[in-house]
Amino acid sequence: MIFAEKRQLRIPGPTPIPPQILRAGAQPMMGHRSGDFVELCKRVAAKVKTVFQTENDVFILTSSGTGALEAAVANTVSPGDQVLVLVSGVFGERFVKIANAYGAQVETIRCQFGHAIDPQTVTDALVKKPEIKVVFATHCETSTGVVNDLEKIAEAVHSSLGDPLLVVDTVSSMGGIEFKTDKWGIDLVVSGSQKAFMLPPGLAFIGVSDRSWDIIEANQSPRFYFDLRAYRKSLPKGQTPFTPAVSLFYQLEEALAMMEAEGFANIYQRHLLMRDMVRAAVRALGLPLFVAEDNNASATVTSILGPQGLDVEALRKLLNQKYKLVLAGGQADLKGKIFRIGHMGFAEPIDMLTVLATLELGLVELGWKLEGGAAVRAAEEVLVRG
Amino acid sequence: MIFAEKRQLRIPGPTPIPPQILRAGAQPMMGHRSGDFVELCKRVAAKVKTVFQTENDVFILTSSGTGALEAAVANTVSPGDQVLVLVSGVFGERFVKIANAYGAQVETIRCQFGHAIDPQTVTDALVKKPEIKVVFATHCETSTGVVNDLEKIAEAVHSSLGDPLLVVDTVSSMGGIEFKTDKWGIDLVVSGSQKAFMLPPGLAFIGVSDRSWDIIEANQSPRFYFDLRAYRKSLPKGQTPFTPAVSLFYQLEEALAMMEAEGFANIYQRHLLMRDMVRAAVRALGLPLFVAEDNNASATVTSILGPQGLDVEALRKLLNQKYKLVLAGGQADLKGKIFRIGHMGFAEPIDMLTVLATLELGLVELGWKLEGGAAVRAAEEVLVRG
Repeated sequence: MIFAEKRQLRIPGPTPIPPQILRAGAQPMMGHRSGDFVELCKRVAAKVKTVFQTENDVFILTSSGTGALEAAVANTVSPGDQVLVLVSGVFGERFVKIANAYGAQVETIRCQFGHAIDPQTVTDALVKKPEIKVVFATHCETSTGVVNDLEKIAEAVHSSLGDPLLVVDTVSSMGGIEFKTDKWGIDLVVSGSQKAFMLPPGLAFIGVSDRSWDIIEANQSPRFYFDLRAYRKSLPKGQTPFTPAVSLFYQLEEALAMMEAEGFANIYQRHLLMRDMVRAAVRALGLPLFVAEDNNASATVTSILGPQGLDVEALRKLLNQKYKLVLAGGQADLKGKIFRIGHMGFAEPIDMLTVLATLELGLVELGWKLEGGAAVRAAEEVLVRG
Repeated sequence: MIFAEKRQLRIPGPTPIPPQILRAGAQPMMGHRSGDFVELCKRVAAKVKTVFQTENDVFILTSSGTGALEAAVANTVSPGDQVLVLVSGVFGERFVKIANAYGAQVETIRCQFGHAIDPQTVTDALVKKPEIKVVFATHCETSTGVVNDLEKIAEAVHSSLGDPLLVVDTVSSMGGIEFKTDKWGIDLVVSGSQKAFMLPPGLAFIGVSDRSWDIIEANQSPRFYFDLRAYRKSLPKGQTPFTPAVSLFYQLEEALAMMEAEGFANIYQRHLLMRDMVRAAVRALGLPLFVAEDNNASATVTSILGPQGLDVEALRKLLNQKYKLVLAGGQADLKGKIFRIGHMGFAEPIDMLTVLATLELGLVELGWKLEGGAAVRAAEEVLVRG
C-alpha cells in the first residue's frame, strides 16, 4: 500500500496519535521507583484532575478501560449487594457482566439502543429499591453514540433516599465532552487513554470521591491489582503500587500539555463542531442517524443506520481497502445494522471533510444515489457558521 | 544534566529499550479489531511460545506482571482452597498476599533470603498435605537474585500424590534464563515485558497448560479483566478480549525478531557471561555476594551485601547523581542492606565493564579501600575466557 501512514483511523478508539505524542513515547526508559518518575507521576496525577474537573484523587492504572470498570465494581460491590445498572448499549451491558461476576444482585434499566436513559426512570427505580448500594452509568455509550445526561441522572441518584454511590464510565467521552465530576457529584469516574486523550491504549483512569472510601475499605470482594486502597497509599508518594506503563506516562504528560495549550472550552467546542458537521452531512446524504435527537448525540462518535439497500459492512470494507478510511461497525446486535464514525482526540473539523468526501466515494461505488459533494457542502456550511 | 540519555539503567527492570524497539512503538495507531491487528496478534502469539518453550497457549495481557500473577491465582484458586507458596523473597510473598486476597488457605515454605528453595521441602510438604491444589513458585526471585531450580521443584510437585498445578513467576527470568515450560511440566507460567524482553512495562504473559483448563473452568473466584476463559476464546481469532496496548504489541514484535535473530542459546549465554563477570568483579572488590552459591545466582540480576562501613544507599545515590548509573536497592527487609545490579535484556558483556568501572569510582569516593581497576580486570578476565 502506498503511503500506509495516510490511513484515516476514524473509529471510536483507539484514535490516531499526534506525532509529538508518538515521539514522547520513544524516550529512554527510567526506573519506576526513581525520583524522575516520582516527579512525572505527581505532575500527571495533578493535571489529569483538571480534565476530570475534580478535587478527588484520580488514579492511573496500567490496563484497558475495562480494567478500571472492574476496579470500580471490585472495590464497591460485595457479593449479594444490590446494584442498579443503566444500560444504553454494549458498555452498559459490560457493567452488568462485571457486577454479575462479583456476585451482585443486579437490577437494570434498559433503554432502546440509540436513545438515552430517562433520569425519571432512575428516580423511580431507587424509590422502589432504596437498598440499592451502587448505580452504574455510561456517559457516552460508544456502541450507539448516545450521551446520557449525567447531571440529571446524578440529581436523581443523590435525591433518592438511599443516595447510593454513582459510578460512571467516561471512557469515550472524557477529554472530548465536558464532564463535571465534582459539580454533578459523581463518585467513581472511569476513563481510558485511547480515545479523546489521544494516547495509545494501555492506561485507564479512575477518580474516587471522598465518600466512596468507607465503602471501598469495608468491601469484601477479592482484588489485588485493582485494589484502590493500594493506589491511594501510593499516590501521595508519586508512585503506583505495581510497575506502570512508563512510556505511556511520558505520552500522557505530552497529551495533557497539548490539551492544556488548546484549552478545554476549545476542545469541547471542537468536538461539538465535528459532531454537527458529520450529522449535517449524514442528513444531506439521506442516511438515517441512529441517534435521532441532536441533544443526545455524542460529540465523539456518530452512528449511522444502514438503510434498506445499503450493506454497511460492504461499505466499511470498501472504504478501508480502497481508500484507507477506517470506520467502525456495529457491536453485538447492531452488527451489520449501523456504522460509526469516530471524531475525537487528534481530529479537527477540516479532517471531517476528508472523511465525508471519502464516504461519498464509497457510497457512489455501492450504487447509493447521492448528489456528489452534498455531504461535504453540508459540513462546510456548519464549519463556516462555526 | 549533560547527555541525560547516557544514563546507565542497571536495575532489574524496567530495563533499557533498544532504539529500534523505541521506534517500533512510534508507528501510527491501528484499530485493535482490524485485520492488520489480527495478523500482528497471531504472529506475536506464535513467537512468544518459542521463548516459553511451550506448545501451550500463551496469553498477552495489558497489565504489569502482577496483573498476570493475579490472573494465575484468580483463575485457579477458589475460596477455601489449600495452596502452597514457595517464598524465597518479596515476589514469593506477593503470591502469598494475592492468594490470601482470594481466600485461599495458604501454606508456605520459606527459605532464608539469598538462598534457593530446597526441592526436598516441597516433596515433604506435599506428602503432609496431599490436598494442596496449587503450588506457587518463583523462578528468578528479583528481590534477592536467586534462581530456584524449577526442574527439580516440578519433579517434586508432579511425583506427589496430589500432583497439584504448578504456577511459576518468570517475570525477571523469561527471555534471559532458559525456562523449559513443557519439558519441566509447568502449568501456568507468568512473565512481563519490562525485563529480558527489552520492552517498556505494560504487557504481561501467561502460558496455560492443557490440564489447567478444567480447574480454570470450574473455578469460583470472581474475575473479568483477568478471566483466562475470555482470553482463550479470543486467541484463535487473533484477538484480545479487551483493548490491548497496541503500541506495545508493535514493540513486542520487534523484540521477538531481535531475540530470534540473536538466537536463544546465545541470549542465555550472554546473560550467564554478564553474571559471571559481575560476580568475579564483586569478589575482586572484596564485597560479599548476597547469593553465595554460583549455581543459584541469577543470570539477570546480582545482589551485593553492603558490608560493615559501606552505606549502600549513599553509594546508590552518589552513583546515580554523579555518574548517572542507576542501581537498585534492597526491597522490604533488605532495604539498606543490599544493592542490586540488573544485567538483562538490552545489555551486553562490554556494558558491564562500564558499570563496574563506575562502581569503583563510587566506592573510592565513599572511602572503600580498593585497588583501582581491580573489578574491571576481574570482569575482563571472565569476558576473555568467554
